[in-house]
Amino acid sequence: MASTAGKVIRCKAAVAWEAGKPLVIEEVEVAPPQANEVRVKILFTSLCHTDVYFWEAKGQNPLFPRIYGHEAGGIVESVGECVTDLKPGDHVLPVFTGECKECAHCKSEESNMCSLLRINTDRGVMLNDGKSRFSINGKPIYHFVGTSTFSEYTVIHVGCLAKINPLAPLDKVCVLSCGISTGFGATVNVAKPPKGSSVAVFGLGAVGLAAAEGARSAGASRIIGVDLNSARFEEAKKFGVNEFVNPKDHKKPVQEVIAEMTDGGVDRSVECTGNIDAMISAFECVHDGWGVAVLVGVPHKDAVFKTHPMNVLNERTLKGTFFGNYKPRSDLPSVVEKYMNKELELEKFITHSIPFSEINKAFDYMLKGESLRCIIRMEE
Amino acid sequence: MASTAGKVIRCKAAVAWEAGKPLVIEEVEVAPPQANEVRVKILFTSLCHTDVYFWEAKGQNPLFPRIYGHEAGGIVESVGECVTDLKPGDHVLPVFTGECKECAHCKSEESNMCSLLRINTDRGVMLNDGKSRFSINGKPIYHFVGTSTFSEYTVIHVGCLAKINPLAPLDKVCVLSCGISTGFGATVNVAKPPKGSSVAVFGLGAVGLAAAEGARSAGASRIIGVDLNSARFEEAKKFGVNEFVNPKDHKKPVQEVIAEMTDGGVDRSVECTGNIDAMISAFECVHDGWGVAVLVGVPHKDAVFKTHPMNVLNERTLKGTFFGNYKPRSDLPSVVEKYMNKELELEKFITHSIPFSEINKAFDYMLKGESLRCIIRMEE
Repeated sequence: MASTAGKVIRCKAAVAWEAGKPLVIEEVEVAPPQANEVRVKILFTSLCHTDVYFWEAKGQNPLFPRIYGHEAGGIVESVGECVTDLKPGDHVLPVFTGECKECAHCKSEESNMCSLLRINTDRGVMLNDGKSRFSINGKPIYHFVGTSTFSEYTVIHVGCLAKINPLAPLDKVCVLSCGISTGFGATVNVAKPPKGSSVAVFGLGAVGLAAAEGARSAGASRIIGVDLNSARFEEAKKFGVNEFVNPKDHKKPVQEVIAEMTDGGVDRSVECTGNIDAMISAFECVHDGWGVAVLVGVPHKDAVFKTHPMNVLNERTLKGTFFGNYKPRSDLPSVVEKYMNKELELEKFITHSIPFSEINKAFDYMLKGESLRCIIRMEE
Repeated sequence: MASTAGKVIRCKAAVAWEAGKPLVIEEVEVAPPQANEVRVKILFTSLCHTDVYFWEAKGQNPLFPRIYGHEAGGIVESVGECVTDLKPGDHVLPVFTGECKECAHCKSEESNMCSLLRINTDRGVMLNDGKSRFSINGKPIYHFVGTSTFSEYTVIHVGCLAKINPLAPLDKVCVLSCGISTGFGATVNVAKPPKGSSVAVFGLGAVGLAAAEGARSAGASRIIGVDLNSARFEEAKKFGVNEFVNPKDHKKPVQEVIAEMTDGGVDRSVECTGNIDAMISAFECVHDGWGVAVLVGVPHKDAVFKTHPMNVLNERTLKGTFFGNYKPRSDLPSVVEKYMNKELELEKFITHSIPFSEINKAFDYMLKGESLRCIIRMEE
């Protein structure tokens, strides 16, 4: 047991004091883990669009001060009562959604939307006592999606931690704790493209490229990237994308363009933008009779998905997925093994690496569209 | 070979001379089958809503005079050139959609939407020469969906005929050539409810009851019938329906009523009305994480399916099906065997039986909502 077990830890964390303002590295106090909680020393974290979205706090209830961050890799420092699955020294990936292993969703083979630990972006406290484990001079700092990995130490519910192979390099596999698994799993677990099939991927950001990587690894022969930014096409080739469509280059709807390119439609599509028009196009561009469209991107709260019901009746399938249908604790270790076995390449997603002190640069890179994933090194 | 082979046959047919007017039994001439065509002696036929819909000709291009009818059982009288799969004397079920066995759909394991022989309600002629095989005094009478079974003899493309077990009673299995297979297949082939699961069936007409029968035979434990007509509930019990919801009895949307009854939603739903609001309810009433909704009913041409995309993203699946995903020639014989093996009960669908001369009664029964299936006996 670490000498810090049971004690408050003072460490550095990047605190967001208000919406859209640069994070400030502060010394925070991190309370010991309570029942079913684990305190984790974060070694590497990376920035995901979801952090930026809630940091900008446009259109949601703002909750500040708050510690963001949910893609990370770390090592267990200490565990609270009732924690039997993890012990100090275990390598873990925190996940923004959990797996209690007891609810109907966890018991279902199909769902990963745990009733107890499903993502909750409004809650800034721990479930056990409704309080935060972070404070500065006694004033609480809110958690974010139960992970708050922009801190040298953080407290996480045991159900939101995947125990992984200790040989896996945390500076690489940390990106599996959100976006990359989301896109990859959407393709391999949900769209399931047959070998030799055609797949359209809408949105060539990190999640979309991970969806393309899934199509590549599944043996799809045509992987059509769709993006409004043609500059993304060149990089997408590394992820198996071998045809490109920029909807701006065409007068007709992109679903019609794709149908013409593919003799009636693609076999599978994966939508990774969250834009409602792209969602509708992604559905309508799959072939009748057998096409499957998978929605990944999170829509605006007022968005409405509209289509003519004949598009459904003509034997198309529309599915949604959340975190690539992976159950965090049960399934994520095997995704790490895919990386270890070289079935899944992660290095190409990592475009930047910076020390924790420069964390605001990661926000700049993402807002400018320059980065896929920027690794933030907690130990400089 | 029958002595009539290669000759014009004069026989009785029920001709629709104009929209919505009673059919008239006329003597028609039925030309011999051409290449890839088969002339069939119809023994039993039954009336389906689709006949009534196109006979009423509200909102479509009317095509008259026409011979309706597409649910039937018969015996091959003679075959045209290139027909090798069927011979005179074979027992067959005509189907309104076909299976050429050569197109991408027929070669796909998932689709039954044959490119060549997919249902075409606008075409009133045969594919081979673009002409009708029916005439009265040289004036052509149009075909309907390639079957026109309201005639003692009819000519059908070989791809639209399922060869079945000659021991199967045609007065029973004739109902498998459209509606019953459509509903039953929607459940067993597409919704695939696990044993012990909950299934909501929207619309308790013949197709919906067949969907319920599919849920019963699959071992679903809760089968919730949804219909605006509470009088249908009692009969539905015979088909496994064990809970009922009449949306008119509730102030809140029926999807919310069903979610409350089932702790978050049913495992599967099957929509058999074609009403767009019912389609949306059927989708939104399935449980997040694993629910699958299957659309069967044919919508109005201006209908728009609308839902919040989060309903999809929360891991619900929306699928459409056509003829229960059965490939007519490959799969229908095995559905007949299910009847022969008593896995599927057909007698309870057959509420009426009338001689051909009284065919207009079948329309009355259906329009009044009194019948499920009315068998029309061609030989009085």
